Amino acid sequence: MAMNSQILLARRPQGAPVAEDFRLVETPLPEPGPGEVLVRHRFLSLDPYQRGRMDDAKSYAKPVAVGGVMECQAVGQVAASRDPAFKEGDWVLGGFGWQGFSARPAKALIALDPKEAPPSTALGVLGMPGLTAWVGLEDIGQPKVGETVVVSAASGAVGQVVGQLAKIRGARVVGIAGGGAKCAFVTDTLGFDAAVDHRGDLDAQLDAACPEGVDVYWENVGGAVQAAVFPRFRDFGRMVMCGMVAQYNTASGAAAAGAPAGPNLGPVVRKRLRIQGFIVNDTGWPRYGQFRAEMLGHIAAGRMVWREDVAQGLEAAPAAFIGMLAGRNFGKQLVSLP
Amino acid sequence: MAMNSQILLARRPQGAPVAEDFRLVETPLPEPGPGEVLVRHRFLSLDPYQRGRMDDAKSYAKPVAVGGVMECQAVGQVAASRDPAFKEGDWVLGGFGWQGFSARPAKALIALDPKEAPPSTALGVLGMPGLTAWVGLEDIGQPKVGETVVVSAASGAVGQVVGQLAKIRGARVVGIAGGGAKCAFVTDTLGFDAAVDHRGDLDAQLDAACPEGVDVYWENVGGAVQAAVFPRFRDFGRMVMCGMVAQYNTASGAAAAGAPAGPNLGPVVRKRLRIQGFIVNDTGWPRYGQFRAEMLGHIAAGRMVWREDVAQGLEAAPAAFIGMLAGRNFGKQLVSLP
Repeated sequence: MAMNSQILLARRPQGAPVAEDFRLVETPLPEPGPGEVLVRHRFLSLDPYQRGRMDDAKSYAKPVAVGGVMECQAVGQVAASRDPAFKEGDWVLGGFGWQGFSARPAKALIALDPKEAPPSTALGVLGMPGLTAWVGLEDIGQPKVGETVVVSAASGAVGQVVGQLAKIRGARVVGIAGGGAKCAFVTDTLGFDAAVDHRGDLDAQLDAACPEGVDVYWENVGGAVQAAVFPRFRDFGRMVMCGMVAQYNTASGAAAAGAPAGPNLGPVVRKRLRIQGFIVNDTGWPRYGQFRAEMLGHIAAGRMVWREDVAQGLEAAPAAFIGMLAGRNFGKQLVSLP
Repeated sequence: MAMNSQILLARRPQGAPVAEDFRLVETPLPEPGPGEVLVRHRFLSLDPYQRGRMDDAKSYAKPVAVGGVMECQAVGQVAASRDPAFKEGDWVLGGFGWQGFSARPAKALIALDPKEAPPSTALGVLGMPGLTAWVGLEDIGQPKVGETVVVSAASGAVGQVVGQLAKIRGARVVGIAGGGAKCAFVTDTLGFDAAVDHRGDLDAQLDAACPEGVDVYWENVGGAVQAAVFPRFRDFGRMVMCGMVAQYNTASGAAAAGAPAGPNLGPVVRKRLRIQGFIVNDTGWPRYGQFRAEMLGHIAAGRMVWREDVAQGLEAAPAAFIGMLAGRNFGKQLVSLP
């Protein structure tokens, strides 16, 4: 009998996830029912939000059950179809989970055209991370020509798109990343105006990179980076709160006991700052068509590039996820399945 | 020779202002030139923002010079006019300072009609504090029917208007004030749904007053009140940052050394919060006509009341100002001049 490999949440992590929090199991291949499609997964998307799903805490989405398959978006190819909308070999996108196969209702799948863009981009630059970048800039960041935009986790899935979109809007863009290779990528490949290595002296580098202060800060990380950028806001600055991955491993990623204090908010009044959080699922998907059309135009014009970090094989997923939370990925983290 | 009493900034305060930071002097009565008007001040407005003007720190407005007259808005009556637009006895509004008289260009004065509303309201419910409340709710707070709005410094000049406007919009309004008399005023006179005494157990009272959490928090104070309200935000909550009077006496009211830490911002992402500061002078005055028309309607309909705390005589101004920063005023703080 054909089998399906799955990675389950073995237990809820205490702080940073470790290998023992996951379990690889073999289960029978699912059988598609009428109107369903069996999908062979080709790329799994690993994203920081999945850390939140591992905790049993009140949040904007239900947690993964202990013993349940870890959640993720994935792209794959139809292996067997019981719906006329799909045939074997078609590329599809959906919420397929950390596993090799899944059987899903055809109407829950989004068809992908591999001639338009590589299918893996549906998980990155043309997918949720790209849409996240676009929505956050459209709705909150709103960078203007000549403004200074600082992007944390600049070489990551969201950060690369944020910075390139801000450049397209005419802003000066400074990317914060960890280490020389990522910083070189940020300036040389992504075309940002400057890079700041958060492993070095943040204040000195930010002084040099942002001599007139910061108009927009794209917050992916929290912690020391946030503390260094916050005092540099100019009047009417905007802080786009996309995530604070530096504290996702603290209790529920929240202001619970143990979470570090934040900045004193006095400057929010004096400088008329706007600090706003958002979740792409709230308002993003109804605007996906507009986003995609713009992005395909940028890609065709050579204004938008991307980098993927591809782990090989399902069994590599836990270590890749753990590494991503520690900043060891270099680009959008994917897992490639054979 | 007729003389003018003035209160000067004698020196920059270190922390909370003390009486010695001010100096009362007698100077010759100013002489209006052509096109100017001599105004006899009747009411001076004392407002928390004036504390910021006493520091020599970068802010949205220039500081008062040491030896200069303390700034404030005031209403008064024309004592002598060298401009055809005004005649003796006319009521006017302007930025007249902590003094008994001033000579100003006629075009810098705003005429008041005492039959429409008591002139002192031009410094409160119909003036800058009222406009502040209106702008902050229009642009940031945007309370909806059935939402819970928490207002700090609820019996103060801005807070009273915020809560009443939020009630008019159909929100449930909880006012935070200091002591039983102010709390009774908040519920019995202003008509808020509940009052919380910040001198008591904040958490227990907020639990009781906001069982479903907070949708809009109007921030006038900072400190312990902010820390108690912040964790209670519901998803999509808005924090209208109007002021943080609890720390105006720390170095430049800023996140400078010594300012207390703020809340960890993790919940801003998870709950999609918006924290935004504003200054009424940025965008408020071009909309003054709309604000005033609405407010006169509310007043005529009995939906808008106000309370003033009136100190008697210019020499009482420093103590009244010091007391206001400590929360000892009860209502909009004015100084009445004979």
